[in-house]
Amino acid sequence: MEKILVFGHKSPDTDSIAASIAMAYLQNKLGKAVEPRRLGNINKETEYVLNHFKIGAPELLSSVNEDNEVILVDHNEAAQCVDGIEKAHIRMVVDHHTMDFKASEPLYYYAEPVGCTCTVLYKLFNDNNVVIPADVAGLMLSAIISDTLLFKSPTCTEKDQKVAEDLAKIANVDINTYGLAMLKAGTDLSSFSEEELVNLDGKQFTLADKVKAKISQVNTADIDEVMARKGKIESAMNKDIDSLDLELNVFLITDIINSNSQVIVLGSKADIVEKAYSVTLEDNTAFLPGIVSRKKQVVPVLTANC
Amino acid sequence: MEKILVFGHKSPDTDSIAASIAMAYLQNKLGKAVEPRRLGNINKETEYVLNHFKIGAPELLSSVNEDNEVILVDHNEAAQCVDGIEKAHIRMVVDHHTMDFKASEPLYYYAEPVGCTCTVLYKLFNDNNVVIPADVAGLMLSAIISDTLLFKSPTCTEKDQKVAEDLAKIANVDINTYGLAMLKAGTDLSSFSEEELVNLDGKQFTLADKVKAKISQVNTADIDEVMARKGKIESAMNKDIDSLDLELNVFLITDIINSNSQVIVLGSKADIVEKAYSVTLEDNTAFLPGIVSRKKQVVPVLTANC
Repeated sequence: MEKILVFGHKSPDTDSIAASIAMAYLQNKLGKAVEPRRLGNINKETEYVLNHFKIGAPELLSSVNEDNEVILVDHNEAAQCVDGIEKAHIRMVVDHHTMDFKASEPLYYYAEPVGCTCTVLYKLFNDNNVVIPADVAGLMLSAIISDTLLFKSPTCTEKDQKVAEDLAKIANVDINTYGLAMLKAGTDLSSFSEEELVNLDGKQFTLADKVKAKISQVNTADIDEVMARKGKIESAMNKDIDSLDLELNVFLITDIINSNSQVIVLGSKADIVEKAYSVTLEDNTAFLPGIVSRKKQVVPVLTANC
Repeated sequence: MEKILVFGHKSPDTDSIAASIAMAYLQNKLGKAVEPRRLGNINKETEYVLNHFKIGAPELLSSVNEDNEVILVDHNEAAQCVDGIEKAHIRMVVDHHTMDFKASEPLYYYAEPVGCTCTVLYKLFNDNNVVIPADVAGLMLSAIISDTLLFKSPTCTEKDQKVAEDLAKIANVDINTYGLAMLKAGTDLSSFSEEELVNLDGKQFTLADKVKAKISQVNTADIDEVMARKGKIESAMNKDIDSLDLELNVFLITDIINSNSQVIVLGSKADIVEKAYSVTLEDNTAFLPGIVSRKKQVVPVLTANC
């Protein structure tokens, strides 16, 4: 057997990268040969985070096979995981999402309904009496800020906030100053093509076991700036519908300052979104006040309306 | 919302009952209104255990609905769970099995690859600084003895043995004397009809996502005594094949003293068992030396040969 590989979901966000690095560090301290990997390009926010704490990005991983032992963080569904995962030996999962998971071997699985994988990992460091170094603490703090939009997302729990405060002390950063700079770094979408925008943080789901869907999200400080590119974004979304055989393709443009989203919806089942939020799509788009969390305010609501 | 209900799998064994009672006790101490339930009749071994430690059996639960909040212990697959589980709100799962699990709301999920759910629960008591009373410790010890066949099953880990020793001190019992008496109480199959035998500890699986199977197990100190009833057992198995639309029906008769099993196999896909263990079924039966664990030596091996 080779080294055990730990990785988050495809289209990795800051939590997927930070949790992979932190989990590898923890397992190394516990005497296990574990290495972090990433399943896609580093986004701008994560790039800012890695630069700030002077930590290198994990190596890219394109597929696994029956020779691989793996640890999943920040996801559990095969659709969001690396190619070949059905052949690999999954030894551990640490996560905070809804579940659609199969494993033919018993494994360690630990999930809590909190805002961020790194909040769950913080408990594992403590349970195992492993000290978190300042740079890893900075990464984990960044993941919590990212996933909870600086504690404003409805997914944020008291535990996330408390853990973030502890981590900020270890990393020696001011949460608000650092957090806003980090989130802002993540909203610079100008250099991305529309094809890239719909894949920056795009996840596939089979909603209610039947509707093949993709739900992508970008964060911005200016919804209008993104909506100015609506035509080309729709073209990219339509390409995905064809190539991935989607019935529903949802693109969320989330205003992280004011905590609202504009949504672009395409696909034969677009009416699910209209029903779910009691809105009428005009020219394929609608404004969703207060909606910022794909996990808590989009996936379950669409699932219930399939 | 009503009280949160905690229960193990259908055809409950000692671990499913003990873990439900122990988990309800733990959650009550943590200030949550949780009550244990059972999904079927108490088997003879569990009856012996409950009598020994003077604890009443949980109430029977036949179905749940969208008003129920539930905690699952000792199982996760819907096929082994209570009717209506797809409508209920699953808040926690504590388990030690392979996984085939979906949840549309994030939840607390904790599983370890150990021999018994009560070994996992022991850690949760410690993590939460909740003292285990002697009678609950006796139940949890019994579950470990039952699931590991007094530490002889290949599913048994060092952790199971260590936790059992700790629990035996709290419960003030001699593990070997008590354990053998308890296992023997569970092997008295004389009062059961053949229909009952195939359901005492019968679990349904969809192997490798395609083969509809049922794998039942009885423990005995005398395989011949059970094989004397082979004809009627096969009739009961054939009834299940018709009513449950099974392609494979496996009945394991496990000699818990010598750690072997005799297997009776029916169904259109019976050849999976022949392939999996390199045996030839003669008159639908074969001897499987060293095979005692459905979870570790049967389910994964059959899955790999589907």
